Amino acid sequence: MNEIATCMHGFAPVDRSGLALHDAPAESWSTVFAEAAELGFSAIEIADSHIRPAHLDDHRLSELSAAAAATGVQPIAVHVQRKSVIDPRLGEDNLVYAHATIDAAAALGCTVFSTGLHQPFSEAQRRALWFWTAPGWTDPDDPEVRALAVARFRELGEHAASVGLRMSLEMYEDTYLGTADSAVALIEDVGLDNVGLNPDIGNLIRLHRPIEDWREMYEKTLPHANYWHMKNYQRDEAGDGSWFTSQPSTLELGLIDYRSVVKRATELGYTGPYLMEQYGGDSLGVCATNMRYLEGLLKATTASSESGAR
Amino acid sequence: MNEIATCMHGFAPVDRSGLALHDAPAESWSTVFAEAAELGFSAIEIADSHIRPAHLDDHRLSELSAAAAATGVQPIAVHVQRKSVIDPRLGEDNLVYAHATIDAAAALGCTVFSTGLHQPFSEAQRRALWFWTAPGWTDPDDPEVRALAVARFRELGEHAASVGLRMSLEMYEDTYLGTADSAVALIEDVGLDNVGLNPDIGNLIRLHRPIEDWREMYEKTLPHANYWHMKNYQRDEAGDGSWFTSQPSTLELGLIDYRSVVKRATELGYTGPYLMEQYGGDSLGVCATNMRYLEGLLKATTASSESGAR
Amino acid sequence: MNEIATCMHGFAPVDRSGLALHDAPAESWSTVFAEAAELGFSAIEIADSHIRPAHLDDHRLSELSAAAAATGVQPIAVHVQRKSVIDPRLGEDNLVYAHATIDAAAALGCTVFSTGLHQPFSEAQRRALWFWTAPGWTDPDDPEVRALAVARFRELGEHAASVGLRMSLEMYEDTYLGTADSAVALIEDVGLDNVGLNPDIGNLIRLHRPIEDWREMYEKTLPHANYWHMKNYQRDEAGDGSWFTSQPSTLELGLIDYRSVVKRATELGYTGPYLMEQYGGDSLGVCATNMRYLEGLLKATTASSESGAR
Repeated sequence: MNEIATCMHGFAPVDRSGLALHDAPAESWSTVFAEAAELGFSAIEIADSHIRPAHLDDHRLSELSAAAAATGVQPIAVHVQRKSVIDPRLGEDNLVYAHATIDAAAALGCTVFSTGLHQPFSEAQRRALWFWTAPGWTDPDDPEVRALAVARFRELGEHAASVGLRMSLEMYEDTYLGTADSAVALIEDVGLDNVGLNPDIGNLIRLHRPIEDWREMYEKTLPHANYWHMKNYQRDEAGDGSWFTSQPSTLELGLIDYRSVVKRATELGYTGPYLMEQYGGDSLGVCATNMRYLEGLLKATTASSESGAR
Repeated sequence: MNEIATCMHGFAPVDRSGLALHDAPAESWSTVFAEAAELGFSAIEIADSHIRPAHLDDHRLSELSAAAAATGVQPIAVHVQRKSVIDPRLGEDNLVYAHATIDAAAALGCTVFSTGLHQPFSEAQRRALWFWTAPGWTDPDDPEVRALAVARFRELGEHAASVGLRMSLEMYEDTYLGTADSAVALIEDVGLDNVGLNPDIGNLIRLHRPIEDWREMYEKTLPHANYWHMKNYQRDEAGDGSWFTSQPSTLELGLIDYRSVVKRATELGYTGPYLMEQYGGDSLGVCATNMRYLEGLLKATTASSESGAR
Repeated sequence: MNEIATCMHGFAPVDRSGLALHDAPAESWSTVFAEAAELGFSAIEIADSHIRPAHLDDHRLSELSAAAAATGVQPIAVHVQRKSVIDPRLGEDNLVYAHATIDAAAALGCTVFSTGLHQPFSEAQRRALWFWTAPGWTDPDDPEVRALAVARFRELGEHAASVGLRMSLEMYEDTYLGTADSAVALIEDVGLDNVGLNPDIGNLIRLHRPIEDWREMYEKTLPHANYWHMKNYQRDEAGDGSWFTSQPSTLELGLIDYRSVVKRATELGYTGPYLMEQYGGDSLGVCATNMRYLEGLLKATTASSESGAR
């Protein structure tokens, strides 16, 4: 069975004294991993909003590995967020940082380097209850910038391959990875076996605007998926399109039918890890609830394909 | 304990190759029933959006029965949807089809023939995320048309009785079955013991407009209920009535208090089957979650009425 | 482990015959307590919307105690609602009533007398689907009225202390207990050890208007908390602030992260009872679901602080 990992949204990036988790002693890292283990997780995604492996020296990186190993929670991916390699000002710095992260992820025993094209929050996003309800960055309609994205992702993908990692690019609105078609086109243009999509369609169905059909998006993107951020939202729309609303929900209850999507992914040969993600409320609790739900789906899918194979 | 059945919303009516489940080989039907059984269901409602028993010849009907029997999932009802017997154009055809469905339902060993007055989706409903947010068909304020509905339902009800079936009419907005009072009046005008209501109040509390009080609706309609589509929605309204929003939810969490409603139905002597229904998301998973919840309610209700009887 | 009690929202205040639960024979009270016990509760809050202990004579009060004791469900608090001691018309009557309630609560073996400054529903609140979406009472910006609140709460607090009770004041919008700062200031002005806050932040995050950050509200109010109404809501806001929507949810799934809040309360030494509260739907069922969830949180918190203490 594929690995099911938790995200780190449920852990505070900075403690009450103002100390960042990144700078905290290894004991604080142990507490994080122990809490994930207590909830039943044996895998975790290291988000660089919380810990930046690229910025840890060898000793601290070993401490991080040891803390994880001691609790039985394996880091499966390092996720670099909002540090786009085509950021107009910081793109080159972000590229250097991404390279360093790939090496650190390999040192941690991860199998995935995860990133995307989303950029830092706008002021409106920072003020919003949910950042996805406010306008943010939009990638320019400029073939040269897109070509730069392709070139830099190819460079990172080759590096990742050389250290045994997959690289996965997260779908995110208003970037070159913002629609099913544009995301697939970008992956195809990068053209490397170890570079695939993270079909995080949850990012898209929560938007306060018209959306693509989630079933069609998965049908197009799942064949290219090599990592998978899973979350779900309830959603309602005015009949006349004058408003849209969404709320974080469980995998079972939200708009996306994960039962059919997971079955379809299995048919298509998806073998990557699953990352449980949840914004708001008890993120860790919902991630654990979702893990148990997903385990049920995977068991049902396995049983049904074994029975079909007879 | 009454039977608890699953709806078929969680199954694809047409597979990826374009083959309709109705036309698929019996193996495909077996897969459907097996998935319901795997989730713990021993009863299912055959929806004619998926399989039209009236359009199966004797051999295929036997195959359908056999597929169900082999998995231990009994078809308890055939549900004819959006084929109103007072459709201005197709009413007579729909009447003929309803008669044929009653015979097929009896052949399948069902106990209920289920239908209603809702008509095919409007273009706006087809385009909407949730069809209930867009305007649809409205039955005319015309005593002759209503009398025709009564006459044809009486004819169908007599046929159903002659083959040992209940007939149940589903409450649905903007039809003669759209309010508690009008639904009860229609049942009383039909005036047959085996013809009752399906108090699918979930259809009404999800509407983006002012609604009747659900408690009052159940109080009026439960005495006439002989089948029961159960689903629930969360709901919010602007304080000034300028907007309404709803989202599919679990039986436990939505607006309707099924704990008190099920207790009230038991007091009133309801003995019909319960049909778990859910739109959106993992319909099958939520139906199974709801079945376990309902089993708890029924157990509590039974325990309390036994204790009360001492 | 602290006590976890259920609210009475799931029980009908008046039965179908028009008989108020307050006036009902003790057998009806037994039925209520038995249903709470059946759901796993061993503690309950007596809400004076349902039973007014102050208005029961000694015999009836003994019957109430006996009914509770027989089912193993202990009344831990009496909650006086919408009877503000600074009501312009009824303030003095409400003060007398509060005193009588304190004595009755002590006689029932409660540990908490719970009240607040909210006043009777406005006509708009009575008409609304959810009362919190319509405008209600606002405490005047008048130092004399506020001083009267302080004086009367001090008087009640001293009485409560004299019979061994805590007094807890519930946070509620548009009253002197409506923001974190104003609520803390009121408690400090009352200045008694046995008088604290009920940080019912759920009351505030459900409002259809801009809200304070729930984390900051808890950080300010938890140090003063001595009783705790717990409920949660999902919430969405338009990016431009033109609308706000909320829906009753489970403790795990709503906006507030109770995992981190309960941990923080434990760090701060909170030792009061927890009261499960839910509006709409199956209030009792959700309260029981929330109790099991909270038990998990408390177990995790205890395990983690014991491990930290080694």
